Amino acid sequence: MSRDPHCVFCKIIAAEIPAALIFEDDLILAFLDIGPLADGHLLVIPRDHYIRLTDVPPELCARVASVLPMLSRAALEVTKAEGFNVLLNQGSVAGQAVPHVHFHIIPRKKDDQLGYRWNAGKYPEGRASELTAAFQDALTHHSS
Amino acid sequence: MSRDPHCVFCKIIAAEIPAALIFEDDLILAFLDIGPLADGHLLVIPRDHYIRLTDVPPELCARVASVLPMLSRAALEVTKAEGFNVLLNQGSVAGQAVPHVHFHIIPRKKDDQLGYRWNAGKYPEGRASELTAAFQDALTHHSS
Repeated sequence: MSRDPHCVFCKIIAAEIPAALIFEDDLILAFLDIGPLADGHLLVIPRDHYIRLTDVPPELCARVASVLPMLSRAALEVTKAEGFNVLLNQGSVAGQAVPHVHFHIIPRKKDDQLGYRWNAGKYPEGRASELTAAFQDALTHHSS
Repeated sequence: MSRDPHCVFCKIIAAEIPAALIFEDDLILAFLDIGPLADGHLLVIPRDHYIRLTDVPPELCARVASVLPMLSRAALEVTKAEGFNVLLNQGSVAGQAVPHVHFHIIPRKKDDQLGYRWNAGKYPEGRASELTAAFQDALTHHSS
């Protein structure tokens, strides 16, 4: 299992720094975000150190995601939240702060001032078909 | 496989309304969001109709998530984005607009004006341990 000695999540996994652990098994850890966006904000991570989701093997991504329904149910029960966001950020441009793949589970309540800045757009004529073709091409050449 | 005749995603699955399909297999569909937050914004859904992630069986959630690395790689390649967000909203309070479970893959570029409103907080003394105990209790009683 790979590890980065400078990664704060790898240190949590190694129990070198403390965290409020919620769940763990042989491949996964879930704990409270120390800088919560909301009460009960969880992080779910693979023990194996990957910076980017795009480098995570599909079967490991599947294993990490398999606990999202269970942990989300627990988050709703514990926090009495009405909903939640599951969020993963790849790249600093997307808000990734710790270079170790992690899913956030963020409980949401009415008027909590959180949320995504939605600026829904519309594709100009032809762009959707162009993109579709480009995606199909990319997937044909790099599927896994 | 369950289906809701009024659900717009179930209609896309049944090919009753068109969508720009990017990927499909026996359990999953991925297509362009018709109101994109960014060029190449994808939606990834199970064919089976579930409104809430909390009701999705762990093995189906795993299968849907298993294609996220592959589709994210394709999204970066196609859009030349520097990063992306994977986002799932449960409940209208969290921004869920279509009542059929879906993961968003949102390509991100510098200065794109998107993003999450982050208001990172801090737990008052004792709250983190209280939450940890409550989560452990919830998971003991309702694990699956």
